[in-house]
Amino acid sequence: MDIIMNAIRLYDTTLRDGTQGENIAFSADEKMAIARKLDDMGIHYIEGGWPGSNPRDMHFFDLAKREVFDHARLTAFGSTRRSNFSVEEDPNLNALLKSSAPVVAIFGKTWDLHVESIMSNSLLENLDMIRETVAFLKAHGREVVYDAEHFFDGYAANRDYALKTLEAAVEAGADWVVLCDTNGGSLPFDVEAATRNVQAKLAAGSRQARPVPGIGIHTHNDSGLALANTLAAVRAGARMVHGTVNGYGERCGNADLTSLIPVLQIKMQHPCVAEEKLANLKSLSRFVSETANQVPSNTRPFVGKSAFAHKGGIHVSAIMKEPRAYEHMDPAKVGNRRRVLVSDLSGKSNVEYKAKELGVTLGGNGIDSRVIVGRIKELEEQGYQFDVADGTFKIMVEKFTEQFQPLFDLESFRVSIEKDKDQPCSAHATIKVTVGGSEEITAAEGLGPVSALDNALRKALGRFYPDLDTMRLVDFKVRVIDGREGTAAKVRVLIESRDHDDIWTTIGVSEDIIEASWQALADSFQYKLAKADEKGAACGDAASHTKQVSL
Amino acid sequence: MDIIMNAIRLYDTTLRDGTQGENIAFSADEKMAIARKLDDMGIHYIEGGWPGSNPRDMHFFDLAKREVFDHARLTAFGSTRRSNFSVEEDPNLNALLKSSAPVVAIFGKTWDLHVESIMSNSLLENLDMIRETVAFLKAHGREVVYDAEHFFDGYAANRDYALKTLEAAVEAGADWVVLCDTNGGSLPFDVEAATRNVQAKLAAGSRQARPVPGIGIHTHNDSGLALANTLAAVRAGARMVHGTVNGYGERCGNADLTSLIPVLQIKMQHPCVAEEKLANLKSLSRFVSETANQVPSNTRPFVGKSAFAHKGGIHVSAIMKEPRAYEHMDPAKVGNRRRVLVSDLSGKSNVEYKAKELGVTLGGNGIDSRVIVGRIKELEEQGYQFDVADGTFKIMVEKFTEQFQPLFDLESFRVSIEKDKDQPCSAHATIKVTVGGSEEITAAEGLGPVSALDNALRKALGRFYPDLDTMRLVDFKVRVIDGREGTAAKVRVLIESRDHDDIWTTIGVSEDIIEASWQALADSFQYKLAKADEKGAACGDAASHTKQVSL
Repeated sequence: MDIIMNAIRLYDTTLRDGTQGENIAFSADEKMAIARKLDDMGIHYIEGGWPGSNPRDMHFFDLAKREVFDHARLTAFGSTRRSNFSVEEDPNLNALLKSSAPVVAIFGKTWDLHVESIMSNSLLENLDMIRETVAFLKAHGREVVYDAEHFFDGYAANRDYALKTLEAAVEAGADWVVLCDTNGGSLPFDVEAATRNVQAKLAAGSRQARPVPGIGIHTHNDSGLALANTLAAVRAGARMVHGTVNGYGERCGNADLTSLIPVLQIKMQHPCVAEEKLANLKSLSRFVSETANQVPSNTRPFVGKSAFAHKGGIHVSAIMKEPRAYEHMDPAKVGNRRRVLVSDLSGKSNVEYKAKELGVTLGGNGIDSRVIVGRIKELEEQGYQFDVADGTFKIMVEKFTEQFQPLFDLESFRVSIEKDKDQPCSAHATIKVTVGGSEEITAAEGLGPVSALDNALRKALGRFYPDLDTMRLVDFKVRVIDGREGTAAKVRVLIESRDHDDIWTTIGVSEDIIEASWQALADSFQYKLAKADEKGAACGDAASHTKQVSL
Repeated sequence: MDIIMNAIRLYDTTLRDGTQGENIAFSADEKMAIARKLDDMGIHYIEGGWPGSNPRDMHFFDLAKREVFDHARLTAFGSTRRSNFSVEEDPNLNALLKSSAPVVAIFGKTWDLHVESIMSNSLLENLDMIRETVAFLKAHGREVVYDAEHFFDGYAANRDYALKTLEAAVEAGADWVVLCDTNGGSLPFDVEAATRNVQAKLAAGSRQARPVPGIGIHTHNDSGLALANTLAAVRAGARMVHGTVNGYGERCGNADLTSLIPVLQIKMQHPCVAEEKLANLKSLSRFVSETANQVPSNTRPFVGKSAFAHKGGIHVSAIMKEPRAYEHMDPAKVGNRRRVLVSDLSGKSNVEYKAKELGVTLGGNGIDSRVIVGRIKELEEQGYQFDVADGTFKIMVEKFTEQFQPLFDLESFRVSIEKDKDQPCSAHATIKVTVGGSEEITAAEGLGPVSALDNALRKALGRFYPDLDTMRLVDFKVRVIDGREGTAAKVRVLIESRDHDDIWTTIGVSEDIIEASWQALADSFQYKLAKADEKGAACGDAASHTKQVSL
């Protein structure tokens, strides 16, 4: 097979279409953090947002100007010019140019129903809008991706007109025409047939010495077929695929890149990303779900926690003999792992690997690493999630191997919160700690109880550890998790902290939110102090760009 | 089209394969309740379990003997005879007969790798096991469904042998041969081609005056393609489809009947169930997720809460003109409904639609709805997210239109939290409220400050509103959001509450987590009390199956 002809260009729209999902919202900084991960994965295009539609997206493009991506081309999204503006005057098109994104994606109308009934335009006028918009952006040196909105519905309703809208984009120089199943109602067989027809038309155009754009495919999952429809289009010649991480998106979501990439690359021999990057797929999925504060789906193909989990006894013994017996592929290829739900044989190598990575020796003090694995598993049963909390994981392993050196001990704290009528709340905390035999008791105020505790702890420890100034809490997430049968629900708190050269996350789990927050807070301070302890002296200025979080 | 030739037999395996899912377990009574719902939907076969494998499944078949189903045929599942038993002596086969189920599903090995490496049988012996088992069950008057385990892997590895195993089942009189993608690794194109080939072989058999069994398809979702693979097989002639409600099942689950049925029936004109029963699909999905104690997936095609939810302003104004514009089908056909989400991506039309849905009049009191939209947008800039917080949205709109009727007023509260060394935290709250001129002051403990406040508020208001007993907080989510530049970061709290007939979400945003929690908590109580106020008296028992959340 011709590898170059088969190679797929991945187009991520997590930051734009993904945010149409019911509970999905990202700040500009969160978008930037996700964009960096996407670039690292080797995604070819990152659609950052619709700069004409809201200030948050414009802010993101301002941030992105300062960023250098290794692989990805940043893409701004917008619509064809409005019917009452020329291209030069259209505010939306000007916002696209102002975003400085080297690639612009433009959506236009394909379906005669939309043009006439919804937009109240004439069919000819719509063709002009497409042609002029694409030509304008090409004249400004942009790579242009033309999104044919509702392509498959339009093709079914009025095939000639649907193809004419594509032609208008092609004549004006579009680099890609993307066939969109906007409503998510199409079936794979129909998508394949329509895409083949488009492919044939474009090839005919090439015989007329016209430039030949690539074909793209953009699908939604309303019928549970976003992935299958994308594969069908690729079989018919599409070479750009649109999708979002975890399939986030409006209604039932978009095509899920975490399935699309492994199916295309492993099962259909269409190269997408470097093989070693594929092994980061699970971690990318997890990063995006944590940033979106969404519970990761355990049953998500390839990257879910249960994707390679075996429950039935027959399956487990067969798997021991021959993994192919009940596994369709090697989970390590996508960074996942086999889990055997009835046995405690799994996980040891993971724990060993991770401990090594964090600089903790497992073999030390004669403690069998299987014992540690068992204790880690018990904590995971209780709701701890160590794959997102390196800081606490390190401390736990140190405790289990008797290597833990507490750098402070809590004696007690008291927090009180007051509110009168419409006045804002006030919180203050008193805390008593001991450090190497010396006691310190202090009090502090804060925006909320955890903030007051953070301030009081910082003040109490500051006398002993001046380097604490460099540390900031930057994120705080709370989620209710199911307890096991018969027990009350629990709260899981994740705290992300950083100093000028490191970011670490700590976790606390309890039925009580303050108890859980305290665990995560204490671990965060302990992690920071241990780091300073290992490296010696204090290390320079506070990372002034990090923002203090109010808890 | 020939309706009878196109009709599909639905085979549900929620009660057997579904329970292989990581967190899925049903008691025998729960299985019976689900079976009744499946029968009512018009499912043709209900696979109840594996009577030979565990006592719980045997107990279910005992219960089922006393039940009369309107449509469904009860099916018992088991394997071909073991190599060291004759069919008459095999305990598994005897358990199948003892179950009294009129239909028996038998799985046998198709893949030479499995026969030889895992089972250590000879290829010929395996054919005998299949033939003898099917013949034995036919001789006992059962309808026999033969499940060809790993059919597609076997077909790829050793096509001749895979087809021979099917022939063995057919010769012995199997009524159905079911092609199973046990590992979930197959692609639709390959499934379609293999199924066509099987179809051709069986037709050839019919020319030899052999009985012609129907073809079935059983898929798993490891590659995200369970649904597409099932459709591909149906195109190639399969007329029995296996699946589970909500796609529950081992690893990434089975084909999801809640997608399969509407796609086959509405989009592919293959009759499955009576049209009026299709409208129960969402309620069936919800019943099974409640019974399994699984959070229903909002993005599940057809039946999820978000499946017909619209967020973007452009979409909403188009939907008002023409539902087909952004809806692939009428949600009422599957018992779902359109929802309009209010967010900063939205405009005036969303707010108007939503207010109407919640029963708030926008035009009242002479206040222009554009003013309200402006104020909603301001709040969204501050971090409120109304698309996930119907409860607070309703209260805000009432406030802006001067229709708000406070059902209690806060005078003050005090919360204190104490922790000593390794002891757990303790929290208690005192609160003073006024209701219609009467003051009440109370105190309560709780797991954490918000829990203590919740308990104290509940106690204080309970004197005035006894109906509060029916309300429970069921979820609590906190995240840090970016403030606008120069201001401190804020905390956003979402609280989900429910009573016996309603679920609502409220939101609070503040730099202080307790202030934000208080806003969400107060709105939740206000929403509940206003609801009771509108409806009149208290409305029955607490929803005892909901779990109280600890904050």
